[in-house]
Amino acid sequence: MENITYPENKLRAFTKSVFLKMGCPNDEAEQATDVLIKADLRGIDSHGVARLTGYVRLWEAGRINATPNVKILHETPSTAVIDGDRGLGLVIAIKAMEIAMEKAKNVGTGWVSVKNSNHFGIAGYHAMLAAEKDMVGMAMTNASPLVAPTFATERMLGTNPIAVAIPTKDQPLFVADMATTTAANGKLEILQRQEKDAPEGWIQNRDGETSTNPFELKDGGALLPLGSDREHGSHKGYALGSIVDIFSAVFSGANYGPWAPPFVSFLPLAKDPVGEGLGHFLGAMRIDAFRPADEFKEHMDNWIQRFRNTKAVPGKKVLIPGDPEREAERERVISGIPLNPKVVQDLNEVAGKFDLDLL
Amino acid sequence: MENITYPENKLRAFTKSVFLKMGCPNDEAEQATDVLIKADLRGIDSHGVARLTGYVRLWEAGRINATPNVKILHETPSTAVIDGDRGLGLVIAIKAMEIAMEKAKNVGTGWVSVKNSNHFGIAGYHAMLAAEKDMVGMAMTNASPLVAPTFATERMLGTNPIAVAIPTKDQPLFVADMATTTAANGKLEILQRQEKDAPEGWIQNRDGETSTNPFELKDGGALLPLGSDREHGSHKGYALGSIVDIFSAVFSGANYGPWAPPFVSFLPLAKDPVGEGLGHFLGAMRIDAFRPADEFKEHMDNWIQRFRNTKAVPGKKVLIPGDPEREAERERVISGIPLNPKVVQDLNEVAGKFDLDLL
Repeated sequence: MENITYPENKLRAFTKSVFLKMGCPNDEAEQATDVLIKADLRGIDSHGVARLTGYVRLWEAGRINATPNVKILHETPSTAVIDGDRGLGLVIAIKAMEIAMEKAKNVGTGWVSVKNSNHFGIAGYHAMLAAEKDMVGMAMTNASPLVAPTFATERMLGTNPIAVAIPTKDQPLFVADMATTTAANGKLEILQRQEKDAPEGWIQNRDGETSTNPFELKDGGALLPLGSDREHGSHKGYALGSIVDIFSAVFSGANYGPWAPPFVSFLPLAKDPVGEGLGHFLGAMRIDAFRPADEFKEHMDNWIQRFRNTKAVPGKKVLIPGDPEREAERERVISGIPLNPKVVQDLNEVAGKFDLDLL
Repeated sequence: MENITYPENKLRAFTKSVFLKMGCPNDEAEQATDVLIKADLRGIDSHGVARLTGYVRLWEAGRINATPNVKILHETPSTAVIDGDRGLGLVIAIKAMEIAMEKAKNVGTGWVSVKNSNHFGIAGYHAMLAAEKDMVGMAMTNASPLVAPTFATERMLGTNPIAVAIPTKDQPLFVADMATTTAANGKLEILQRQEKDAPEGWIQNRDGETSTNPFELKDGGALLPLGSDREHGSHKGYALGSIVDIFSAVFSGANYGPWAPPFVSFLPLAKDPVGEGLGHFLGAMRIDAFRPADEFKEHMDNWIQRFRNTKAVPGKKVLIPGDPEREAERERVISGIPLNPKVVQDLNEVAGKFDLDLL
């Protein structure tokens, strides 16, 4: 079936009305909506409004608190730990980044670890909040365990993304936003819908053997860390995912590793939790804490121009992290956001439930 | 030819005497020696005393200043930029980490970017300095351009390592220390000595085609970013290497990307430098800036135990980052450090030059 394309504003209004029906305060419903819509605009369809029904189900299961009382539990001039009170990660991460930026304003950098949260959307969104304020922004989160460490047959880590956004002068922002796996789960979902095989090196079966069946995760299989196998550096992807897990959850007191709560509401929470909820880690570094901001930004422009002009193989060009997403955004703000019919159907079920106009 | 094994202390005395002959102050000669010997003990032979002749040649070429005046150029309570005055990176990075730790003591975290430096040895050494003081330690550096970004046929980045060391209670430290490439250059050097083919996915030839010839770099080839190719996430390895480059060199005012100075003295420096020398980035985060130190360390022990007990494929076990290096160290402090005869020959040439006893 063909995708159906919606103008950004229509999806924005719909999404906000759902968050309002869940009981979110108006400003927080707007923030949560913005995170999802930006994901869709930037072409990261797996993290846009397609996730909205997931949040609704978690809320119905009592796992999301629509009116959380977010608190700072502990802080120093450059750090804080915050308790998200089971709120929407989408909103909590924005608050955490605001705290990080405030600390950076005062002492150069700010670092905030968050517990008792839920899925925070695309990591890049939160990192970019800082980059717009002449700070380097960093955002990471742990997530539902889907990834097997090198040599493992068990799922121990989430796709645990790392995002880093860096300010520039005339060039567009440098925005790296990557799962620490070879392929993000969203890419696998696309293959599932298309009933196509996955490339080797993305997933393994329940016995730890390489597989190309995109449905392998439903049968005890796992995603592979960046690097795919030991010979190609999967121990590095595993280490990166572990670092994200530790900064997000051991710093804060959230659940780590296999205890991380699942995003889907039909999977049970761990019976023996080691912390509260999911964890995030947000950082902001003022560029002028290192070097005059103009000087830094001029050199970033030079960095980007030099890398963009790298000699490339015929027919290809060297991209700067963030290029494909910006390209998608440029197009979709005009032409609209294409949704899979299955996603539209799910959203219309939510509309029915909340007595809202259908999409 | 067989390796020749030396007791740690003999190599330590020899190495220190070489740094002293270069004119390093006694304490700095000891520091530089410790970084190299620890690399050998930890099994990272490519970064141990095998590099000593390289430092000597750089010093002879006037590219290393044995008595640098290391200065803080700019600082905030949580950040600093330091000018390494063309000194040994081995020593400058230790000073930079000391500054980072002092700042962490005061405001929770400390972040130091360094310019005008040289090769700093194994990144893990510097990260571990902080972990021994109940801080998470981070160390990165840019390096001689040997790596082609995704789709490139040009070498634009170094193997730009990231190290993260995390304190524990009864378990050994978590120490991740990884090049942001599929395989470190040292692994390629081992294949060159053995005249064996490299696995696919490690290197490409001058036209950007995958190659298994370990000598490809001498003919315009390049190392590949972690992920190996686009389908397996090489754009992520490229992004990670880029972030290391920017934090190390754009923050500080060092040379970045293809301008990074080569480690080997026979290659010329860039004619149009964009900064001074090589750059590093060091960070320290006090664990009790987030959570009581004991609590953090107990959960780290639990994290490590759970991951060590992950179900694994038959005959394998899941390792914790730092395990293989610690295993090597446990053995080599007793049995000694094996050196390739070619390395011994090079070191004895240095001995002759400086009128020192042969190894």
